[in-house]
Amino acid sequence: MSEKRVSISVIRRLPRYYRFLGMLEEKGVSRISSGELSAKMGLTASQIRQDLNCFGGFGQQGYGYNVTDLKKAVGEILGLDMPKETILIGAGNLGRAILSHMAFREKGFAITAIFDKDPALAGEEIGGVVTEHIDALEDFCKIHKPTIAILCVPKMESEDLVKRLVDLGIKGFWNFSHYDIGVFYPGVAVENVHLGDSLMTLCYKIKELDEAK
Amino acid sequence: MSEKRVSISVIRRLPRYYRFLGMLEEKGVSRISSGELSAKMGLTASQIRQDLNCFGGFGQQGYGYNVTDLKKAVGEILGLDMPKETILIGAGNLGRAILSHMAFREKGFAITAIFDKDPALAGEEIGGVVTEHIDALEDFCKIHKPTIAILCVPKMESEDLVKRLVDLGIKGFWNFSHYDIGVFYPGVAVENVHLGDSLMTLCYKIKELDEAK
Repeated sequence: MSEKRVSISVIRRLPRYYRFLGMLEEKGVSRISSGELSAKMGLTASQIRQDLNCFGGFGQQGYGYNVTDLKKAVGEILGLDMPKETILIGAGNLGRAILSHMAFREKGFAITAIFDKDPALAGEEIGGVVTEHIDALEDFCKIHKPTIAILCVPKMESEDLVKRLVDLGIKGFWNFSHYDIGVFYPGVAVENVHLGDSLMTLCYKIKELDEAK
Repeated sequence: MSEKRVSISVIRRLPRYYRFLGMLEEKGVSRISSGELSAKMGLTASQIRQDLNCFGGFGQQGYGYNVTDLKKAVGEILGLDMPKETILIGAGNLGRAILSHMAFREKGFAITAIFDKDPALAGEEIGGVVTEHIDALEDFCKIHKPTIAILCVPKMESEDLVKRLVDLGIKGFWNFSHYDIGVFYPGVAVENVHLGDSLMTLCYKIKELDEAK
């Protein structure tokens, strides 16, 4: 079966499989049935079999899954093994927190530069990478050709920046700004983390809970 | 129509409507047609009409929507006008960045306490709120009865903490940990921000883009 037809809802579950399998691996578990995995993940066993069958299936009927093999296979499906040269735009509180918080390297992301419009930040080292002024963006990209940008700037600044970055060959955005990149650049890969939207969705869920009383 | 039957995909679009309407309001736009709104948001006009009809509909045929009224109505549907006493657990890089980055107050969230297990942080003021040691959690909650917790701690610590928090009456979690709260506590409202999962999903989208070449 072609991977092209796999739905985004299946894809969005794969990182969870990857995390759970990693935990099992750390605990020394070498084999797990879809039934055991489903109890831990809050999915049905048939859902898990269906999901993994989208990519060809990894289990043997009655024997369950080899944890290490399955984790490796899910990681390869996700493309975690592919190297990705990545730059961070915006070295404010959020950008810094993300840099220090995330395990980029184990997912194949190499952070090669940080840019900020504040000249006072130029030269500051964050997580082993030196911050540069945003004016140096064009020169850097022409030489180093990064393909991914993490965007941690306000929406107002994002519109111009995204245009510059796409012109410079950026193919994927991890987008923390509220600029809807995908609407204007359908050809690039975008994963949005709209924290404000998430917080508003929480509001709704709480309200719904109150109303169900 | 009961709001209960509104699908989560409609709900997830409401914060975007709210943001767009806020921008239009700031620009002084008082009225907008579903066609204009759709062009700006990358949705079809019929999708927008359908979404808003789930809640009773706000437009007059041929006259478009009153921006301020519609924004207010969407905000009320989301419950942004409801006061929500909120505590933050985990005053590390991510917790601090979120506190300083987010406009909690305008969404009805009042941050009333910050807790961390590091005794060295006790007494430190972050965003006008004093950090307390996690041991003070029980006493604080019994007196102040907060209903929402923002969880910015590692997964390993989350399991125990979530149990304590649910026992103390917390009804909603903005969950930055990798602990799948919803699987174990189906009765509470949970909105997950799994940054690692989002980054892995970006990996997949980039890989898919490469393969489409």
